[in-house]
Amino acid sequence: MKFLRPKSKTLLLASAAMALAFNVQSLPAQEKPADHGDDASAAYQPSMTTLGQLQVEIPGRKPGDPVMTPSEYQNANTIYFERCAGCHGVLRKGATGKALTTDITRENGFEYLRDFITYGSPAGMPNWGTSGDLTEDEVDMMARYLLLDPAAPPEFGMPEMRASWKVIVAPADRPTKKMNDIDIDNLFSVTLRDAGQVALIDGASYEIKTIIDTGYAVHISRISASGRYLFVIGRDAKVVMVDLWMETPGPVAEIKVGTEARSIETSKFEGWEDKYAIAGAYWPPQYVIMDGDTLEPLKIESTRGMIYDEQTYHPEPRVASILASHFKPEFIVNVKETGKILLIDYSDVKNLAVTEIEAERFLHDGGLDSTGRYFLVAANARGKVAVVDTKEGVLTALLETGGQTPHPGRGANFVHPTYGPVWATSHLGDDTVALIGTDPEGHPDQAWTVVQQLYSMGGGSLFVKTHPTSAHLYVDAPLNPDAEISGSVAVFNIADMSQDEPEFVELPIVEWAGIAEGQPRVVQGEFNQQGNEVWFSVWNAADLESAIVVVDDKTLELKHVIKDPRLITPTGKFNVYNTRADVY
Amino acid sequence: MKFLRPKSKTLLLASAAMALAFNVQSLPAQEKPADHGDDASAAYQPSMTTLGQLQVEIPGRKPGDPVMTPSEYQNANTIYFERCAGCHGVLRKGATGKALTTDITRENGFEYLRDFITYGSPAGMPNWGTSGDLTEDEVDMMARYLLLDPAAPPEFGMPEMRASWKVIVAPADRPTKKMNDIDIDNLFSVTLRDAGQVALIDGASYEIKTIIDTGYAVHISRISASGRYLFVIGRDAKVVMVDLWMETPGPVAEIKVGTEARSIETSKFEGWEDKYAIAGAYWPPQYVIMDGDTLEPLKIESTRGMIYDEQTYHPEPRVASILASHFKPEFIVNVKETGKILLIDYSDVKNLAVTEIEAERFLHDGGLDSTGRYFLVAANARGKVAVVDTKEGVLTALLETGGQTPHPGRGANFVHPTYGPVWATSHLGDDTVALIGTDPEGHPDQAWTVVQQLYSMGGGSLFVKTHPTSAHLYVDAPLNPDAEISGSVAVFNIADMSQDEPEFVELPIVEWAGIAEGQPRVVQGEFNQQGNEVWFSVWNAADLESAIVVVDDKTLELKHVIKDPRLITPTGKFNVYNTRADVY
Repeated sequence: MKFLRPKSKTLLLASAAMALAFNVQSLPAQEKPADHGDDASAAYQPSMTTLGQLQVEIPGRKPGDPVMTPSEYQNANTIYFERCAGCHGVLRKGATGKALTTDITRENGFEYLRDFITYGSPAGMPNWGTSGDLTEDEVDMMARYLLLDPAAPPEFGMPEMRASWKVIVAPADRPTKKMNDIDIDNLFSVTLRDAGQVALIDGASYEIKTIIDTGYAVHISRISASGRYLFVIGRDAKVVMVDLWMETPGPVAEIKVGTEARSIETSKFEGWEDKYAIAGAYWPPQYVIMDGDTLEPLKIESTRGMIYDEQTYHPEPRVASILASHFKPEFIVNVKETGKILLIDYSDVKNLAVTEIEAERFLHDGGLDSTGRYFLVAANARGKVAVVDTKEGVLTALLETGGQTPHPGRGANFVHPTYGPVWATSHLGDDTVALIGTDPEGHPDQAWTVVQQLYSMGGGSLFVKTHPTSAHLYVDAPLNPDAEISGSVAVFNIADMSQDEPEFVELPIVEWAGIAEGQPRVVQGEFNQQGNEVWFSVWNAADLESAIVVVDDKTLELKHVIKDPRLITPTGKFNVYNTRADVY
Repeated sequence: MKFLRPKSKTLLLASAAMALAFNVQSLPAQEKPADHGDDASAAYQPSMTTLGQLQVEIPGRKPGDPVMTPSEYQNANTIYFERCAGCHGVLRKGATGKALTTDITRENGFEYLRDFITYGSPAGMPNWGTSGDLTEDEVDMMARYLLLDPAAPPEFGMPEMRASWKVIVAPADRPTKKMNDIDIDNLFSVTLRDAGQVALIDGASYEIKTIIDTGYAVHISRISASGRYLFVIGRDAKVVMVDLWMETPGPVAEIKVGTEARSIETSKFEGWEDKYAIAGAYWPPQYVIMDGDTLEPLKIESTRGMIYDEQTYHPEPRVASILASHFKPEFIVNVKETGKILLIDYSDVKNLAVTEIEAERFLHDGGLDSTGRYFLVAANARGKVAVVDTKEGVLTALLETGGQTPHPGRGANFVHPTYGPVWATSHLGDDTVALIGTDPEGHPDQAWTVVQQLYSMGGGSLFVKTHPTSAHLYVDAPLNPDAEISGSVAVFNIADMSQDEPEFVELPIVEWAGIAEGQPRVVQGEFNQQGNEVWFSVWNAADLESAIVVVDDKTLELKHVIKDPRLITPTGKFNVYNTRADVY
């Protein structure tokens, strides 16, 4: 197995940093930082700014250095939070992106920062200026902003959570049986990113059953073990719980779990179905266990602590993905900056037992193998995948994927014609797909090694997808700058993988959608329950037409295009059955 | 059981805050805070101070307000760390003492602070001025110091620990059998507080076998399960490991685990004897698991997190006492400010499992019941005792002691003539001793309730003591301001406890010691291995004569006085056998 590939397709600048674009969204007004003073046109004094109530002199700044007005500072803070914090951290300590503390930014200076923000870098910094995402004035403002110390973000503990918590329909007032004729298990929950909504779409009729207001840029949908409750979490850390039994499914509870978040999950172990929900926050760095019926917050745990290898203190270890074990009453919580995988035993919340597995820094997302026993999670900026045995509660393996910045989503499980059961991940930073053996019993030599490396259309991939009944592996590339590539999906025939370098076909999804305006990106294949159709989002700008394209998995031909004026910026899609049963 | 007692003896001002005096000690030079500028006589500008590299203007201060010179700031910082931080916290967030953040101190103002520091308060603030501990000028300086923001204390992670770690005698170079004729199990390790040493004193001959340099104001001694290794920890967080098999027992390894610390313990579960040591720090708020042969630091865990009841974030949850379980491969770690008891499973340090028990805030010290199964720990500022079942890993009970600020040390276990097995604690804040039933099988009605309240000489008690072979319960009162009381020990006859209000006799320990100068305090009874003698420290000022007084437990008569010019400020004493076998 060699990882170097001389004839590799164009290596892209697309990187983990670009993935942030997937989640960029204006924050609601109440999320904006506190006003730092009257919005007068008077600039700050050249060497002073406000931090809380204190006037802070910044010795590194010289008279004549660029300055900011209070309103500029406020705007820059909002932009930083939306566009930059995901990679560089709320405290600017760095993670997927570099550290941007003032000792570094002042050393680099205003012009360097301005140009870096404008043009980006091959290492993964997006070209915010030349892409048109930020105006020249905004780039100028952000460069000045980075010369100032970050505003201290607020804590968000139990008083704040309880204040945000609403039970919209109490459990006693909910239906005792399903009140609609929806085939819930074949329903799709579709993130309408910039609208701050999810659409529930029927898997058979392609009909939008309802649209539900949620937090902004819903990151994921998860389904309770019974299949009744849908949980979504926005990038603004708002959790919404939807009852799919209601005549028209709608929210029954909501809560905010912090200022920024990514992950939500519900208890799935036998005897604990629907009992608890858990949400993980980026800021404050913490997770919260909630009542599964009401979202009542029960237990908040901070993730602040030591980085696993250096054992130095990190003030902002963000909670990345969370997954519920099928083998134990446990949540598996991945802490990004400290590189620790936490096994949270939810069987006794008052006497909470947590096993902390030393894995690798920059843990991001991942999923279970086909047996449900092993959890594979990408340490993206380290180019690695960590494997946890959820039955034994130990780290089984830590391996290099051979690609740059793996981004598996939950990954894709299938039986390789040569190597048996494998789990696949594509990469943000290059065109490779790594196939990792997951069968220590039947294929011990291949277990937890990269058995094969596929070459797809190009870098900028976010998701791979297959289904137990499918003969295909789908690989998207929505963050690829080439419109043809970002508008298509690569399909590998699993049977061809016995060859040295299997070919793929490209499905022209955007073309099939018949959308002329904009440069829509094709993102995240999702199968229906039966596994005979795979759906792709055609994600266009908020003011342009988007669509969902349904492909026949047998023939690889277009089956249907879902279009609706309400389908604004569709991104992630979550089939209820596949999501709750961890079929991927 | 009534807790109000109209005819109670003088209720003392002695409080938890005073307990700090027990551990006050100058820090070595390297511990002093970084110089904040040239030690010129020029005062700071009225409204500016330095915080790191930043010049910070303090808006709350008016021109003409008191100011500090850099050298004053440095001195005040040292005094704060030595005298105040133990109760008020390094970050001044408050704990046993009140919060002293600048929003509060500036509201109170300079004169209020000056007077409060001078005269103390009935709620437990010591009278640092009128006691003579601080000069008038020092009190003035401390009041000004408290108007400024605290200096940010440094982190102390693995790089700092490893830099401080020294193996003085490698395991391979140590003796393979005991090379001396010392009866190790009857040796006493005696803290020589202000000397930064421990004395090892033979329990039969009363001979000082050796004096070992340690950290400052050694808080406790602990013995490895085999009885071979002695571990001591200073208030300055320096751990010293002593090999008792060497011809002259001496240090074989040392390490610093932070800037301030209190607790050390070693693994005692069968199969894990002598394998690990653990130390807990006040600052940074963390604990570290170390190799039991070399003190090599293996795993550092932060305790920063949520307060158990409010579930708000606390930046400085200090590690109070630590105890090794006899029922599982676990350390029991008590986290003061968050009120959580952590059960640390040391059987797999790489995949560390921690059970976090919600108990009560301000956990301090405690010990096991006579069976070793239940751990009782004081939540001192809450007037409570938490009981943990170390076999099941759950909170068994949380009860009020009926007294003010319980301070059990490890407590005292004996069989009460009426109520069966009990565990006792005295109090800092009043003269009561609480007897708590510990026999849920044989005496279920009494289990985990205060079965009887004794009234001792007065408040200011730190330790109670008995032994399985003893008919007596000893209660000290070293922090009582009355010299007669602080110079004596109360002895209760256990057989008399069937009476409603058992009387005690007072042993005039200081008088027996024959020390004329100073006002020495009698502290901490400790039995020899056989249980027929109990030793008391006669703790005088560093430049005056101190002593250890040995009392015959049968006759309650003076047996011996140990005096030696090297016995400077003796405080805690730890009999090797009783300490390693948890006999108390």
